[in-house]
Amino acid sequence: MFEQSRNLKLFGLMASIVLSCAAHAAEKTEASVSFSKRELATAAWIRDHASKENQSYRILESLTTEVGSRMAGTPGDARAVAWAEAKFKELGFDKVWKEAVRFPSWQRGVESAEILAPFSQKLAVTALGNSISTPEAGIEAEIIRFATLNELIAAPVESVRGKIVFIDHKMKSANDYGQVRQGRASGAVEAARKGALAIIIRSVGTDSHRLPHTGGMHYAADVMQIPAAAMSNVDADLVARILMRGGPVKMALKLGSHAGEVMQSYNVIGEITGSELPNEYVLIGGHLDSWDLGTGAIDDGAGCAITMAAAEFLHRHGLRPRRSVRVILYANEEQGLFGGSAYASEHQAQLKQIQAAAEADSGQGPVLQLDSFVGAKARKLVMQMQSVLAPLGVKKGTSDADPGPDMGVLKSAGVPSFELVLKSDDYFDIHHTADDTFDKIEPARITQAAAAFAVFAYLAAQAPIYFGEQMPVVQKSH
Amino acid sequence: MFEQSRNLKLFGLMASIVLSCAAHAAEKTEASVSFSKRELATAAWIRDHASKENQSYRILESLTTEVGSRMAGTPGDARAVAWAEAKFKELGFDKVWKEAVRFPSWQRGVESAEILAPFSQKLAVTALGNSISTPEAGIEAEIIRFATLNELIAAPVESVRGKIVFIDHKMKSANDYGQVRQGRASGAVEAARKGALAIIIRSVGTDSHRLPHTGGMHYAADVMQIPAAAMSNVDADLVARILMRGGPVKMALKLGSHAGEVMQSYNVIGEITGSELPNEYVLIGGHLDSWDLGTGAIDDGAGCAITMAAAEFLHRHGLRPRRSVRVILYANEEQGLFGGSAYASEHQAQLKQIQAAAEADSGQGPVLQLDSFVGAKARKLVMQMQSVLAPLGVKKGTSDADPGPDMGVLKSAGVPSFELVLKSDDYFDIHHTADDTFDKIEPARITQAAAAFAVFAYLAAQAPIYFGEQMPVVQKSH
Repeated sequence: MFEQSRNLKLFGLMASIVLSCAAHAAEKTEASVSFSKRELATAAWIRDHASKENQSYRILESLTTEVGSRMAGTPGDARAVAWAEAKFKELGFDKVWKEAVRFPSWQRGVESAEILAPFSQKLAVTALGNSISTPEAGIEAEIIRFATLNELIAAPVESVRGKIVFIDHKMKSANDYGQVRQGRASGAVEAARKGALAIIIRSVGTDSHRLPHTGGMHYAADVMQIPAAAMSNVDADLVARILMRGGPVKMALKLGSHAGEVMQSYNVIGEITGSELPNEYVLIGGHLDSWDLGTGAIDDGAGCAITMAAAEFLHRHGLRPRRSVRVILYANEEQGLFGGSAYASEHQAQLKQIQAAAEADSGQGPVLQLDSFVGAKARKLVMQMQSVLAPLGVKKGTSDADPGPDMGVLKSAGVPSFELVLKSDDYFDIHHTADDTFDKIEPARITQAAAAFAVFAYLAAQAPIYFGEQMPVVQKSH
Repeated sequence: MFEQSRNLKLFGLMASIVLSCAAHAAEKTEASVSFSKRELATAAWIRDHASKENQSYRILESLTTEVGSRMAGTPGDARAVAWAEAKFKELGFDKVWKEAVRFPSWQRGVESAEILAPFSQKLAVTALGNSISTPEAGIEAEIIRFATLNELIAAPVESVRGKIVFIDHKMKSANDYGQVRQGRASGAVEAARKGALAIIIRSVGTDSHRLPHTGGMHYAADVMQIPAAAMSNVDADLVARILMRGGPVKMALKLGSHAGEVMQSYNVIGEITGSELPNEYVLIGGHLDSWDLGTGAIDDGAGCAITMAAAEFLHRHGLRPRRSVRVILYANEEQGLFGGSAYASEHQAQLKQIQAAAEADSGQGPVLQLDSFVGAKARKLVMQMQSVLAPLGVKKGTSDADPGPDMGVLKSAGVPSFELVLKSDDYFDIHHTADDTFDKIEPARITQAAAAFAVFAYLAAQAPIYFGEQMPVVQKSH
């Protein structure tokens, strides 16, 4: 009886919960799922106040000054991890921890190139990430130019054999990056298939300075590995002018870069714990590693600083939203998205607890547009978010957001994703060069981006429903 | 009789010449010394046609592509001399020759610097021209910052002894060059007087790129020689930020630069011989040597190309003016005006035969203003020149023209001098850096400058009077 009575009581309780939930669900139909006036007012307050401070600028100044260059697996990388843990703690994050990430390392060595004939000209070059070295004495060979990777692929083997391939694909705007970077990534494989001794590409960048752009390249298991380098756009212009005169052009190339041992670094994570749903997460962040030539200001110190400052703003002002906000500073993005993969694997069981994912990895801002990738019921919420952001100049965006390189794997797994699209028309001027330094940062730009991320993180974490489902959050099982 | 008769005849002839000259002289008073309508129309035709072609651009493309870097005494310098002789001949100059110039040479070696503590940061540095090397292992010492050379001069000896002096004088605009370069030129002497181990300066340049600016420095006979380098503006910003945190900052500096043997190069000269007064000269030109980091496009390939194209234009169109136009491509300007001094010495006896001297050594143009330094009677002629140039945007200038580094010695000797003032607000962005390359040249700018120099050379060579005297040219004794 006791048991029965208890069961009845329980049944009655459950029935009332179900009815209540049903009522709640009925309320939150497409038309009615929205942020409250108070939530929207809070978000507007965040926008207006976060855009008046320079926390992100100061965080980035600290990272670039006190750590600087931090290529994965280098002492700079280790210093960056220590910096990030200390900085999260200094900023008062509720939880701060790191998660190990392992990867094959790569080291840069000597690098030089020159045209030997018909005119002696030194070139500003840099090894592409992952490139093997040349023989110690270097390689001397005739160069053969291709306007694009596809032109190389279409070329007869006999025209390429024994030569240094030069891919002269000029990047005219940021929109070209996806296409032009193919020559950097896959050029060595295609050149080696045709018997080339090495490959040197025009820098994948939009500037005209004597600073080559590095960046990742890969080999294929069944194709001979050959050294791969980039020359500055200025030097590519010069070599193209020499080639236009006709006749063979001979180049010397020396690279000392090489693979190193398997190394370990860390995703460093700071969390502002949610007030109601602490086990549901809004993930923002950037990648902590940089290429080695600059001090990683725009790539991706800016993304780290913007998202750290955004979360810290909420915390400092006691605006603890319902869900947790995690700032993830990923390890080794540049050499193969190792940090992003590691986080997704490590947190495989909790992917359904991710309310939203949005990495910042396209520069210092400002945010121009809000792209989303959410369930149908969340669309009105996204529209409300954009309305709050509109005074910052943030426009409506697409519904197929790219959440960033390290978070792409989450989107593939069905995680609701966002892109706060950062202005990047000048990003590829300094991307992956020695010129990626703090002096390029404009306080107003990075501050706007941090304010936009603060608004986004607050509203996503506060939202009445799970962004990934049609149902309201109270009915969710996760 | 014969003799007498002949003498009488000669007397009659001379009397008629004297009368004619007197009449001519009377005509050419202050008010009446002017170019003829036909001369002015010819000058306008030169202006309009020379500004529609790209000869100067093509000459500079040739020099920077086929020769490139050409620091005095290097193989590139020798190639530049051969290029200049061949190019003058190819362009059809009437006379082409070279005059030997001797100078102590200097060689660049390894160069690296880094901050060791409190934060490890690599710096982009370059040796200043004439600097001695550090010990092979480099120098490690605390750095001490001074905002200016004067601040260093005012500092107590004990604060400087045993340290690396850092002069952090920021160049805000081209107007600052004269002042800021003092730290580059004399900083090592002042630092060594107080017992410093080395000096490193903020680059004397207006850019924000990771490319240090080299440039000449000197030692004093009675003061210890210490190594001298420049870091890029970006790195100077970084070091200043590190210093602002307080506490000692330790730097490592390694330079392998050193003096070499006495070398010989050449002033290369091309002449368009005058139709009436072939032994009177209008001198234009630039300096053929460059610093070694770039390919010497703006400094001073542009000046060479502008003046070569200007003279060649007159020649190609059969516009042979009364006096000769000489284009002088000076040897080794950068390390001490050796070519300019050599020309003045070599031609000491003919200084009074120089009608006008105007070097182009401030970039690619356009010409903004016509400065002059001439006798009072020539002022109206200068005004007429400027009127012809006005449609190109050339304004009236000062009456105390600086004819350029290599021709300054001529002005000091009383030679009539001009400056076709070149736009230089962006000149110090790339001056003396690896970024001084052909891609920075805008055809419209260099073409305007060549057209202005063509007009100037034509009118100066055609002028009815010697620019350096009060008297009309027919009365001149030289």
